[in-house]
Amino acid sequence: MSRGKASNSNVEVLYDIPRLEEKLIVRALTSLGIKPKLTTVKEKPLLFKENAPSVCLIRPMSMYRAAYSAAVRESSGSFTINSSEAIIACGDKVLTLAKLASAGLRIPKSMVALTMQSAEEAYRLMGFPLVDKPPIGGWGRLVSLISDEAAYRSLLEHREMMTTQQLRTHIIQEYIRTPGRDVRIIVLDNEVLGAMYRYKQENEWRSNVALGAKAVGFKPDEELSEICIKAANAVKGVFVSVDVLESDGYFLNEVNGVPEFKAFIEATKRNVAMDLAEYVLRVLKR
Amino acid sequence: MSRGKASNSNVEVLYDIPRLEEKLIVRALTSLGIKPKLTTVKEKPLLFKENAPSVCLIRPMSMYRAAYSAAVRESSGSFTINSSEAIIACGDKVLTLAKLASAGLRIPKSMVALTMQSAEEAYRLMGFPLVDKPPIGGWGRLVSLISDEAAYRSLLEHREMMTTQQLRTHIIQEYIRTPGRDVRIIVLDNEVLGAMYRYKQENEWRSNVALGAKAVGFKPDEELSEICIKAANAVKGVFVSVDVLESDGYFLNEVNGVPEFKAFIEATKRNVAMDLAEYVLRVLKR
Amino acid sequence: MSRGKASNSNVEVLYDIPRLEEKLIVRALTSLGIKPKLTTVKEKPLLFKENAPSVCLIRPMSMYRAAYSAAVRESSGSFTINSSEAIIACGDKVLTLAKLASAGLRIPKSMVALTMQSAEEAYRLMGFPLVDKPPIGGWGRLVSLISDEAAYRSLLEHREMMTTQQLRTHIIQEYIRTPGRDVRIIVLDNEVLGAMYRYKQENEWRSNVALGAKAVGFKPDEELSEICIKAANAVKGVFVSVDVLESDGYFLNEVNGVPEFKAFIEATKRNVAMDLAEYVLRVLKR
Amino acid sequence: MSRGKASNSNVEVLYDIPRLEEKLIVRALTSLGIKPKLTTVKEKPLLFKENAPSVCLIRPMSMYRAAYSAAVRESSGSFTINSSEAIIACGDKVLTLAKLASAGLRIPKSMVALTMQSAEEAYRLMGFPLVDKPPIGGWGRLVSLISDEAAYRSLLEHREMMTTQQLRTHIIQEYIRTPGRDVRIIVLDNEVLGAMYRYKQENEWRSNVALGAKAVGFKPDEELSEICIKAANAVKGVFVSVDVLESDGYFLNEVNGVPEFKAFIEATKRNVAMDLAEYVLRVLKR
Repeated sequence: MSRGKASNSNVEVLYDIPRLEEKLIVRALTSLGIKPKLTTVKEKPLLFKENAPSVCLIRPMSMYRAAYSAAVRESSGSFTINSSEAIIACGDKVLTLAKLASAGLRIPKSMVALTMQSAEEAYRLMGFPLVDKPPIGGWGRLVSLISDEAAYRSLLEHREMMTTQQLRTHIIQEYIRTPGRDVRIIVLDNEVLGAMYRYKQENEWRSNVALGAKAVGFKPDEELSEICIKAANAVKGVFVSVDVLESDGYFLNEVNGVPEFKAFIEATKRNVAMDLAEYVLRVLKR
Repeated sequence: MSRGKASNSNVEVLYDIPRLEEKLIVRALTSLGIKPKLTTVKEKPLLFKENAPSVCLIRPMSMYRAAYSAAVRESSGSFTINSSEAIIACGDKVLTLAKLASAGLRIPKSMVALTMQSAEEAYRLMGFPLVDKPPIGGWGRLVSLISDEAAYRSLLEHREMMTTQQLRTHIIQEYIRTPGRDVRIIVLDNEVLGAMYRYKQENEWRSNVALGAKAVGFKPDEELSEICIKAANAVKGVFVSVDVLESDGYFLNEVNGVPEFKAFIEATKRNVAMDLAEYVLRVLKR
Repeated sequence: MSRGKASNSNVEVLYDIPRLEEKLIVRALTSLGIKPKLTTVKEKPLLFKENAPSVCLIRPMSMYRAAYSAAVRESSGSFTINSSEAIIACGDKVLTLAKLASAGLRIPKSMVALTMQSAEEAYRLMGFPLVDKPPIGGWGRLVSLISDEAAYRSLLEHREMMTTQQLRTHIIQEYIRTPGRDVRIIVLDNEVLGAMYRYKQENEWRSNVALGAKAVGFKPDEELSEICIKAANAVKGVFVSVDVLESDGYFLNEVNGVPEFKAFIEATKRNVAMDLAEYVLRVLKR
Repeated sequence: MSRGKASNSNVEVLYDIPRLEEKLIVRALTSLGIKPKLTTVKEKPLLFKENAPSVCLIRPMSMYRAAYSAAVRESSGSFTINSSEAIIACGDKVLTLAKLASAGLRIPKSMVALTMQSAEEAYRLMGFPLVDKPPIGGWGRLVSLISDEAAYRSLLEHREMMTTQQLRTHIIQEYIRTPGRDVRIIVLDNEVLGAMYRYKQENEWRSNVALGAKAVGFKPDEELSEICIKAANAVKGVFVSVDVLESDGYFLNEVNGVPEFKAFIEATKRNVAMDLAEYVLRVLKR
């Protein structure tokens, strides 16, 4: 597809709540001569097999909204960034861990418990402290560090009241003692765009920026870059952010299939939106 | 792997609630000299990357329990029937429709609405009568035939009260007028095991056996067999049941990744459990 | 308590989302020399038995937020408008109907079904068309007119998926054929402040202003005034709005314990907020 | 009403899941010549204003099923044990605390927070350790002892995911250091039937029998008896169990409006079911 043919309808950005990221993407595409179709998936029904743009950037914040937007566009033959398979493989942490482990990557010691009874057994096997989180949810929400029996009973009872099997499912992991930070790396088309540390806030053991963590850019070593590219491929992701824990070596833990990158740009000065726009242009020219 | 090596630990049956199906599978495996490991996933935590049997039959009734059981076993290198990818592609009807359509198969005219507002617009586009269903759930549950505005407002308000994005998502489809029945076909390893009609009960427009439909075996024609095998491959399913609607030709609609087959055996006299056990044996010998 | 003593701390307005109603109330109080304490219950914890103002106007939109705000203030001896008992008696329609019927007032023929199984039996007893609604919720939400079996099965299945016993509870009522409108009357301190009809929108059988109904003021006859005052007393409400259905005579149906009155003021030109403020002043002087 | 007139239809026992308690009640009534009508509220719709027995024993385990059963029977003029008002006042712990405090009884220092934001403020005001529980739920479920910030953030995030305002409401209380037990007393018709200690299990800070606590009968002193009778009256309960915490004096905390008494009979040897049956007989004779 030659650039000359790049028309308005060749690229689409689908979103639910427009964040800075979506605005930067649209601006970068526009600066390259691509005027994307903007689709707010909260207002418009998505039709299977209808005519759709060649390339669809899938940006809804809600995981299932993102996955469904991608799936419907794939039924029309569109190239989706990311694919519905990648979005689901990243959006559900049981699937992510399974894909990472299947690809031979190192993950924290992890178990899945599908009931409260099974979670109690998993706790005995793992020992305290441990981390318990449900398969879905972002920004560190419900990710709990459990150090004693009172805390664990309270958590189990609360999770048992949740209304879906996904939120009643426990991923139980060894607690990896990191140097007060974790690593986030963005991968696009098999290339590392940059890396940042997220230094956790005092009084908070999690390193999510949403929970006050401070982002600082750094240059990743070759090993780190390599495992992050492998992780992206393990989940079939074209444009993802990869979370890594450091201790005695690296542990892969989570991958985000609809990556936020506002804090990343600030920390690394890398213009991620422009990288993405240029990649879209390369795809259109294929 | 030679049959002589087939030991206790080579095959595992994972389930939550043991139904007749699971008992028949265990009996068939046993009759072939395979004593499967039985794992009740409601009681036992599932460990990533632990030693696991070569072949794992994934039989939990709950979709996410099935998908997670498969995913964890895949991290150990086990061959899962079905894979976590197939179970999720079948268990979520948006993904199923996208896979079927992407494979060039005919589906009913369908739309996805991610909000109540978008569903109202989809209703206007589709016109009455229409079918509205959420992406997840089995046995026909919440699948609604909507013929007028009062019914549709009630449905939209009820779905808006659901607590997950999945249950607040609407798949809106044209209503296919069938001859009072639908078709269910079981596919195993690219082969059709048999076919049955499900004649719907009076006062019920859905053809689910759980809703009183009567199952009657029949011999499928070549076209029907072919599209069902294609449907199984579209979702990467090894052992699935495929639901087909007949009107002016066939419409593919749903695929089940953890197929029930009690009614199917009664209607077709085909020993599905033995077919499955023999397939497992072939996999072990590969 | 003499007016001279009326200080800042003598009257409190508690709310979650400030609507026009709350602003009008504060303005009316201020015009009478009362500067109320404003408490946003979404931000401030409520302490049992702490010093609290003499009179508390309970205005949160959420029924339980309203009831809990009232209850905590009552533990401090405050006079609440309305009391927690009245708010709960109005906020839960099973309790409302029971109180109205116990007071000898005429209600539509009504049944309560606590399960799906019991609802099916109730439908048989009632016959179509019928009205089905859960005990809680406002603005007509989930209030369904059921005319045929397909609609009723869909509704039952949806309600069965709700996550609380309250939303899984069915109030099943005969459908009262009204002249395309219902009646809303506001009662304060055993006096009728006015009355309005709510003419339902075309294509909508419910008469809620939130659903497009048009409000028109009228002068109520003596019988109507009398039963509305009785209804207010039945639920122990000091300041309530009463919903009445007209057919062959009047049927009492619902009472609102935290009444909205924006549309009422427009329709009747009665300054409800000032009436309320003057009542508060009378209470302070008692 | 003379005993001679006591017919089958004069007494009704309403229940959802028949426990030992309900069987003992029916047996005791029968031994006194009363053959109660048994109504399983999961199967039968309840009709407002229909002919109903004179006395209705309200025994559903689910709080709202109990409250609704009582309310509907009250609309027919039946005397309910307990009344819907008492069941709701006991079943919702915000209301219970408010009624107890309003009656001048001593309660633990308590606050209500209606949002996560307000709960954080309440935690600061209360200091650790503290107890956090939602207004509804029995058997100690979700009652959490919070000693540090990690546990509290996990709890707040989990509660924020709950699907009702009631479960998102926090009752935050000072932690009362008891001698490893709490006190449960059953009151019937202004008389104390007996008292038991519930000694909490090791590794569990709550004293619920469902959580392994051991019940031991004892003779309550006059002060204790008196405050429990006052507590019963505060919630308008005829037949209730009262939970008391001992530290430097007594704290009233919870009242149960549909009391279980299996463990109580074992610990105190008091035939509670017979006491209740005799009370019913006295009511019938009034």
